[in-house]
Amino acid sequence: MAKIAIVMGSTSDWPTMQHAAIMLKQFGVDFEAQVVSAHRTPNLLVEFAEQAENSGFSAIIAGAGGAAHLPGMIAAHTHLPVFGCPVKSKALNGLDSLLSIVQMPKGVAVGTLAIGEAGAANAGLLAAQVVALQEPEVRKAIIEFRESQTETVLANGKLEL
Amino acid sequence: MAKIAIVMGSTSDWPTMQHAAIMLKQFGVDFEAQVVSAHRTPNLLVEFAEQAENSGFSAIIAGAGGAAHLPGMIAAHTHLPVFGCPVKSKALNGLDSLLSIVQMPKGVAVGTLAIGEAGAANAGLLAAQVVALQEPEVRKAIIEFRESQTETVLANGKLEL
Amino acid sequence: MAKIAIVMGSTSDWPTMQHAAIMLKQFGVDFEAQVVSAHRTPNLLVEFAEQAENSGFSAIIAGAGGAAHLPGMIAAHTHLPVFGCPVKSKALNGLDSLLSIVQMPKGVAVGTLAIGEAGAANAGLLAAQVVALQEPEVRKAIIEFRESQTETVLANGKLEL
Amino acid sequence: MAKIAIVMGSTSDWPTMQHAAIMLKQFGVDFEAQVVSAHRTPNLLVEFAEQAENSGFSAIIAGAGGAAHLPGMIAAHTHLPVFGCPVKSKALNGLDSLLSIVQMPKGVAVGTLAIGEAGAANAGLLAAQVVALQEPEVRKAIIEFRESQTETVLANGKLEL
Amino acid sequence: MAKIAIVMGSTSDWPTMQHAAIMLKQFGVDFEAQVVSAHRTPNLLVEFAEQAENSGFSAIIAGAGGAAHLPGMIAAHTHLPVFGCPVKSKALNGLDSLLSIVQMPKGVAVGTLAIGEAGAANAGLLAAQVVALQEPEVRKAIIEFRESQTETVLANGKLEL
Amino acid sequence: MAKIAIVMGSTSDWPTMQHAAIMLKQFGVDFEAQVVSAHRTPNLLVEFAEQAENSGFSAIIAGAGGAAHLPGMIAAHTHLPVFGCPVKSKALNGLDSLLSIVQMPKGVAVGTLAIGEAGAANAGLLAAQVVALQEPEVRKAIIEFRESQTETVLANGKLEL
Amino acid sequence: MAKIAIVMGSTSDWPTMQHAAIMLKQFGVDFEAQVVSAHRTPNLLVEFAEQAENSGFSAIIAGAGGAAHLPGMIAAHTHLPVFGCPVKSKALNGLDSLLSIVQMPKGVAVGTLAIGEAGAANAGLLAAQVVALQEPEVRKAIIEFRESQTETVLANGKLEL
Amino acid sequence: MAKIAIVMGSTSDWPTMQHAAIMLKQFGVDFEAQVVSAHRTPNLLVEFAEQAENSGFSAIIAGAGGAAHLPGMIAAHTHLPVFGCPVKSKALNGLDSLLSIVQMPKGVAVGTLAIGEAGAANAGLLAAQVVALQEPEVRKAIIEFRESQTETVLANGKLEL
Repeated sequence: MAKIAIVMGSTSDWPTMQHAAIMLKQFGVDFEAQVVSAHRTPNLLVEFAEQAENSGFSAIIAGAGGAAHLPGMIAAHTHLPVFGCPVKSKALNGLDSLLSIVQMPKGVAVGTLAIGEAGAANAGLLAAQVVALQEPEVRKAIIEFRESQTETVLANGKLEL
Repeated sequence: MAKIAIVMGSTSDWPTMQHAAIMLKQFGVDFEAQVVSAHRTPNLLVEFAEQAENSGFSAIIAGAGGAAHLPGMIAAHTHLPVFGCPVKSKALNGLDSLLSIVQMPKGVAVGTLAIGEAGAANAGLLAAQVVALQEPEVRKAIIEFRESQTETVLANGKLEL
Repeated sequence: MAKIAIVMGSTSDWPTMQHAAIMLKQFGVDFEAQVVSAHRTPNLLVEFAEQAENSGFSAIIAGAGGAAHLPGMIAAHTHLPVFGCPVKSKALNGLDSLLSIVQMPKGVAVGTLAIGEAGAANAGLLAAQVVALQEPEVRKAIIEFRESQTETVLANGKLEL
Repeated sequence: MAKIAIVMGSTSDWPTMQHAAIMLKQFGVDFEAQVVSAHRTPNLLVEFAEQAENSGFSAIIAGAGGAAHLPGMIAAHTHLPVFGCPVKSKALNGLDSLLSIVQMPKGVAVGTLAIGEAGAANAGLLAAQVVALQEPEVRKAIIEFRESQTETVLANGKLEL
Repeated sequence: MAKIAIVMGSTSDWPTMQHAAIMLKQFGVDFEAQVVSAHRTPNLLVEFAEQAENSGFSAIIAGAGGAAHLPGMIAAHTHLPVFGCPVKSKALNGLDSLLSIVQMPKGVAVGTLAIGEAGAANAGLLAAQVVALQEPEVRKAIIEFRESQTETVLANGKLEL
Repeated sequence: MAKIAIVMGSTSDWPTMQHAAIMLKQFGVDFEAQVVSAHRTPNLLVEFAEQAENSGFSAIIAGAGGAAHLPGMIAAHTHLPVFGCPVKSKALNGLDSLLSIVQMPKGVAVGTLAIGEAGAANAGLLAAQVVALQEPEVRKAIIEFRESQTETVLANGKLEL
Repeated sequence: MAKIAIVMGSTSDWPTMQHAAIMLKQFGVDFEAQVVSAHRTPNLLVEFAEQAENSGFSAIIAGAGGAAHLPGMIAAHTHLPVFGCPVKSKALNGLDSLLSIVQMPKGVAVGTLAIGEAGAANAGLLAAQVVALQEPEVRKAIIEFRESQTETVLANGKLEL
Repeated sequence: MAKIAIVMGSTSDWPTMQHAAIMLKQFGVDFEAQVVSAHRTPNLLVEFAEQAENSGFSAIIAGAGGAAHLPGMIAAHTHLPVFGCPVKSKALNGLDSLLSIVQMPKGVAVGTLAIGEAGAANAGLLAAQVVALQEPEVRKAIIEFRESQTETVLANGKLEL
C-alpha cells in the first residue's frame, strides 16, 4: 500500500504541514513526517530523497518558507512526484516561499500548492489523488470527502443581515 | 496504458502548452490536447472534467493566463490529479496567472508549475512521474531523461572569458 | 422590482459581503444572499448562474478570496452584469483575490471593486446605480445617500493639534 | 435608446479604449468617445460628469493610466454607473493604473475591468449588459455574441504537435 | 507670512497627517488643516484648490489612502506646490496609496513623501523648507532641527549585547 | 534670480533627466545639470550638497535608478528642498528606484515624482512652482503652460472608430 | 585579530541587528556596534567609513530600513567588504529596505542578507566566514556551529499528529 | 594566492556571470568558472561545494535564475563565504531569483548582489575585497579601480540641453 513522505525545513513548519498529514489520514493513506532541512542537513536531504523510492514512498510533500529550497532539491534527487508547500514567512508573507518553490527550471518539477495551511492540506489531497489512481479505497474516500464538503456548503441557507 | 489530458484556455496558449505534450511524448505517454475555455465554454469544461476519468485520463494538465480559472475549475469537477500551468500574460507577465492558479482554497487542489514554457514542460514531466508509479517503462524513460540532462550539464567544461 | 443576488465562496466571506447587502437595503433594493462555492459546489454555481435571470435578478454581486474564481465563473454562465468583490486573503492580503477577479479575458466581463469591506459596500452601491436607471425611487435614494455623505464630510471643521 | 460615454485621459489611450467602442457598436449600443483629462482638464471633468445624465448617457466608461484618477473622479460627480479601464503604463505595466482605479473608498464606486485592451473591450460588454436590462435587442445581441464566441472555441479540434 | 494648507480625505487620516502639522508648528509655520474628500466632496476640492492661493497658502500638503486621488486632483486645480502623503491602507499597506499619488502624468506634479507618519512629518518639513527660501526665521529653525536630530543620534554611544 | 540644480547618478540618466531641464527652460528658470554619483563620487556629493545654497540654488532635482541613494543623500547634506526622480531600472522597471527614493525616514525629506520621463518633467515643473512663489514671471509662465495644455486637450474633438 | 563593525541607522534597529553581534560573539570575533545614520549623521558616516580600515575593522555590517541608504553609502566610502541587512519596515515589511540595499550599481558592492533577524544573524555569520579565511580558531568555531545546528535538526524524530 | 570559484546554473547564465570574472581578472584575482546546476547536477553541487576549500578557493560566487537554489545549496555544503547573483528571469525579471537567493534562513548565509550584470560584476568586486584583506596587491588594485571610476564620473562636465 502507498505511503507518502512529508518533509519540512523546520519543526516550526509542522503547525502548517500537519494539515497535509490530517488530510492523508482522513483518506487512509499512510505517511511519515520528519524535518529535513535543505540548508542545515543537506546530506540528509540527499540521502532521504535518493532512498525515498526504496523506502516505499509514492510521492513526497515538502514544505518550507523564505528561500524555500527543500522541495526543489528533493525533486532534484528523486523521480517520484514532489509536491511543494510554501510556508508563510515573517517579512514577505510567503510570497518569497511561493516563488522559490514554483519557479523551477525545465527538467525538474515541483507541483506547488497555495501558501500556508490550505496549501498543505491540498498537498495531502493531491498526493492522495495520485495514490487513488491505484487504490480504489482511497479513490472512494476522496469522492466521499468531496461530496461531503459539497453538502456542507449546500446546507447553508440564505444569509440574512 | 495511461493517458494525460492537456487543456488550455485558448489556442494562443498552445505555443506554451505544447511543451507539456513534447515532454509526455518523450516519455512515451499518450496525451490528448484541446482548448477548453473556462469562461467561453464553461459547459464544455464541466462535461470534459466530469468525463475525464471515464475517458481514460489519469491526470489533467491545464494551462491558462490572466484570471486563470481553468485549472481550478477542472479540479472542482474531477478527483483526478490536476496540474496547472500559468501562461505568461500581457500586462503582468503571468504573476496574475500564477496567483489565480496556485492560491486554491482547502479542499480542491491544483499542483502548480512555473510561469511559461518551463512550467508547461514540467507539467508534462510531473504527470509522467505520476504515470511512472504504475508503468515501469515510463519510470525508466524518466530516469534516462534525468540522467541525460545531468550528463549534458556535466559535459560543459570550464568557462573562459 | 429589481432584485440583486449576492453570492460568496464561503460563510467566512459574509462579514465582508454583508456590506453589499447593507448598502442595497439602504437604497430599498431587494437582495438574496447565499454561499455558492466555485470549487466545492461547482454544479450549484452553474445552476444558480444559468437561472439567475429567470430567478428575477438584475445583477449579481460575487465575492471570493485567494484563487477567487466565483465572479468570473458566474459571469461565464450568465449575461447579467456581474460585480466582483476581492475578499482579503490570509497570506497575500487580497492581492491574489483582486488579480484573480479583475484580469478576465476579453469576452466575459466582471466589474471589480476594491479589496475588502469598502469594495463590498461599493458593489452594493454600483448594483443599485444600475437598478436606478429603471427605478426612480432607487435613483432618489442614491442621490440622497451621496448628498448625505458629502454633508457629513463638510460638517467637519478645522482640525487642531 | 441608451447611450454610453467613453472618456479617457489622453488620445494615446484611444488604441486601448477603442475596444470598448468596438464592443458597443457590435451590440448596437450608441456611444460617444472623447478625451477628458482629470489632471489637465479638471473643469471639463466636472462639467462632463455632472451633465452626463442630462446628456442622455446611461453609463460611463473611463480609461486612464498611471495615477489613473479619471474613473474615480467621474464617479465622484455622477450617480450613473462608472466602469474603469486601467491602461497599461510605461514603467509598471498598468499595476499602478489598476490600483489607482479599483481601490476606491466606500461610498463612491468604480466597476473595474482588466488592464489593457481586454479590459476595455469588457467595459463595453459590461456597459452593454447594463443596457440589456432595458433593451431586448441588446440583450439578444449579447447572447448571440456569447454563443458565437463559444462556438468559435468549440470549433477547435484536437491540437497536435 | 507663509501659511501651509493640510488637507486629507477623511478624519481617519488625521492621526497620520497631524505629523505634518506638528512639524510645521515646530518651525513656526502657520497651517490650516481640514478634511477635503476627492470622492465625497469633489466640489469642495475644486473650490478649495482654486482659492488656495487667494487664501494665502504657499503650498498644500494632501494625504489620502487607497485610490488616493486627492493630492493629484488638488494639483490639477492650482499652481501652488503640492506635496502628497500616502496614508497606509488596510489591505495593501499603502502601496496602492503611494502609486496613486506618485505616478502623475507629465504636466501636473505632486511631490510625494513616504507612506505613513514619517512621510506626513516630512511633508511638513519639505513645505517648511520651501517657506524657508523666503523666511529666514524658518530657515534658522530648520537648521536647528536638523542639527538637533544629528546630535541626538551622535549622543548614542556604543551598543552592547 | 532663482537657479535650480539638476543632478543625476550617471550620464545614462540624462535622457530621462533632461526633461526636468526642458521644463525649467520653458518657464525661464535657470538650471545647472551635472553628474553626481552617490556611490562613485560620494565626496563630490557632500561638497555639492553642502555648497548648494551658497552656489545660489533654490532647490535640487536629483535623479537615480536602482538603489537610488542620490536624492536622499543630497537631502541629508542640505536644507534646500530636494525633489527626487526615480529613473527606470533594467530589471525592476524603476520600482526599486521609487522605493529607494520615496521611503525616507522622518527628519530628512525628498519630494518624489513619478518613475521616468514624466516624473523628471514634473520635477522641473514642481521646482518652478516653488520658484514661482517669489518670481511673478515664473508664476505667469506656469499658469500659461497649464492653460495651454488644458487647451490642447480641449481641442480634441470626439473620437471615432 | 580581526574586528567587525556593526552599524545601523537607528537604535530601533538594534533588536534586529544584535543578532549579528550575538553570532559574532559566538565565534569569538570582536565587534563594535553603533548608530550611524546616513540621513541624520551623514558626516559621521563619511568619517566612520573612511576610517574603518585604520580603526582595525575587517568588514562592516550595516543595517537599515525603508529607504535604506546606509549600507551602500558606507560601501561608497571604503574598500572593506560591506554586508547589508534590510530591517523590516512598517508599511512594506522590508521589501523597500531590501531593494534599497541590494540593487547597487556596478562598481560599489553590498553583500545583502535576508530581511530581519535571520538576515542580521547571517551577516554576523558571513563576516565570521570572511574572518575565518585568516583565523583558524574562527574557522573551527564556524564548523562546530554548523555541525551543531545540523545535529539539532537530526535530533528531531518522526513528527506525529 | 587566493582563487575564486564562479558557478552558475546554466551556460545561459554566462553572459551575466562573466562580469564577475571580468572584475576579478581586472584585480588580478584567479578564478575558475563552471556550470553546476542545483537541480540537474545535484551530486556535482555537493561534491563541488564540499571540496571547494580543498580545491584552494577562498570564496564562491554563485549565479542562478528563477527558483535559484544554487547559491544557498552551495552555502549549505561549505563554510567558505558565498556570494549570490540573481540572474534576470523570463517572466518575473529576476524578482523570483532575488528572493530565492537572499531570503536564507538563520544559520546558512549568502551575501546577495543586485539582479543581472551589475550584481555579477559586484560579486567579483566583493570577492576581491575579501581577498584584499590578505593580499596587498589586490587591495591596491581595488583602490585604483575605485579611484579610476570616481575620476571617470568627475570628468563629466556640465550637461547641456
